[in-house]
Amino acid sequence: MDDALLTETNPLPAAFDERLAAQLGFLIEVDRLKTVLRQSPLAAARRRENDAEHSWHLALMVILLAEYADEPIDVGRTMRLVVVHDLVEIYAGDTPLYDQEGALTQAAREQEAAGRLFGLLPDDQAGLLRELWDEFEARRTPEARFAKAMDRLQPMLLNWMARGGTWRTPGVTALDVRTRTSSVGEASATLGEVAKSIIDEGERQGWIRPAP
Amino acid sequence: MDDALLTETNPLPAAFDERLAAQLGFLIEVDRLKTVLRQSPLAAARRRENDAEHSWHLALMVILLAEYADEPIDVGRTMRLVVVHDLVEIYAGDTPLYDQEGALTQAAREQEAAGRLFGLLPDDQAGLLRELWDEFEARRTPEARFAKAMDRLQPMLLNWMARGGTWRTPGVTALDVRTRTSSVGEASATLGEVAKSIIDEGERQGWIRPAP
Ligand SMILES: [Ca+2]
Repeated sequence: MDDALLTETNPLPAAFDERLAAQLGFLIEVDRLKTVLRQSPLAAARRRENDAEHSWHLALMVILLAEYADEPIDVGRTMRLVVVHDLVEIYAGDTPLYDQEGALTQAAREQEAAGRLFGLLPDDQAGLLRELWDEFEARRTPEARFAKAMDRLQPMLLNWMARGGTWRTPGVTALDVRTRTSSVGEASATLGEVAKSIIDEGERQGWIRPAP
Repeated sequence: MDDALLTETNPLPAAFDERLAAQLGFLIEVDRLKTVLRQSPLAAARRRENDAEHSWHLALMVILLAEYADEPIDVGRTMRLVVVHDLVEIYAGDTPLYDQEGALTQAAREQEAAGRLFGLLPDDQAGLLRELWDEFEARRTPEARFAKAMDRLQPMLLNWMARGGTWRTPGVTALDVRTRTSSVGEASATLGEVAKSIIDEGERQGWIRPAP
């Protein structure tokens, strides 16, 4: 992708101090998340979802499904995790859940992207976003585990509505779907049952290839 | 718009209890927010913004700009407000900031939409979302004032990047822009100065018609 920042094409007024200018420049740059397409088809329109609207959807799911977390979670913290979790894809691109080749280089691409993107912010806030992203990725807190569960459950709802969606990726079977969505049940037994019902029924309907 | 719920076209598996089924049905229905187009042009692509990605953008702004709130705010609560604030537009449509005719019927349309949409949820959560939306609209808490400030500041950043955007709406002058964005300065003196600089410079550049 083009190396120039969006604000380089049209710099903001020079009136702001360094900290504020960095924050506003970052907040304009992240507009790019709206252009990072995922594989998931929307339920409400015939197009693929983008990362920004996906992140919003997860935040709302956190508010409404937090009651099902097996360990108590801080809802505000969990929302911060989901709002930030895909930002690195602005420079690293989306790596589809069923893309095994992309997965090999994903970590390195995302690390580089994180340094470049978060580095636009003042140091303390670069550190804050890095911490949130690391927490999400490591899944060592109840909040991170629940955030990841939402990230796996949401595309299942969209796949269900599409009668297949990314489940129809060549080579993918119900076994793959069960494996890649196991994090739902790790955060919530109830929502794990939801995932199970959806996959079982999807398989029965012929929207997911049977497990080998 | 079509009166059928999205899940009516493809009901979820029958395995879930009533509460969970209502929550999942709602979470699928709100996929429609991704199809509600605003007038604002994206900075990162040649298309208009939708409400879901706009709401995500505000949530990230809350995290990074909260330090400029003149009164202390609860960041988690403020994020809840922005994530929920546009939901009623799923059934009521977006009312552009500079649309005087639409503004006349906006309150009634949005009240009806709120009843219909939030009514899909279990009573306690319908009440919770209604409370958040009412709080946002009434602007009587520091969190609601800051959320509204973000809702006004964000399109100014996009208009700046578009060298005009919705500022070029026929009949709109710098006076209108100053009036409709005054809520920024009511929540944060610093961000009020940002808004002022952007409008002053936008006027100087010819991207906003001069005040009469
Ligand atoms: Ca709105």
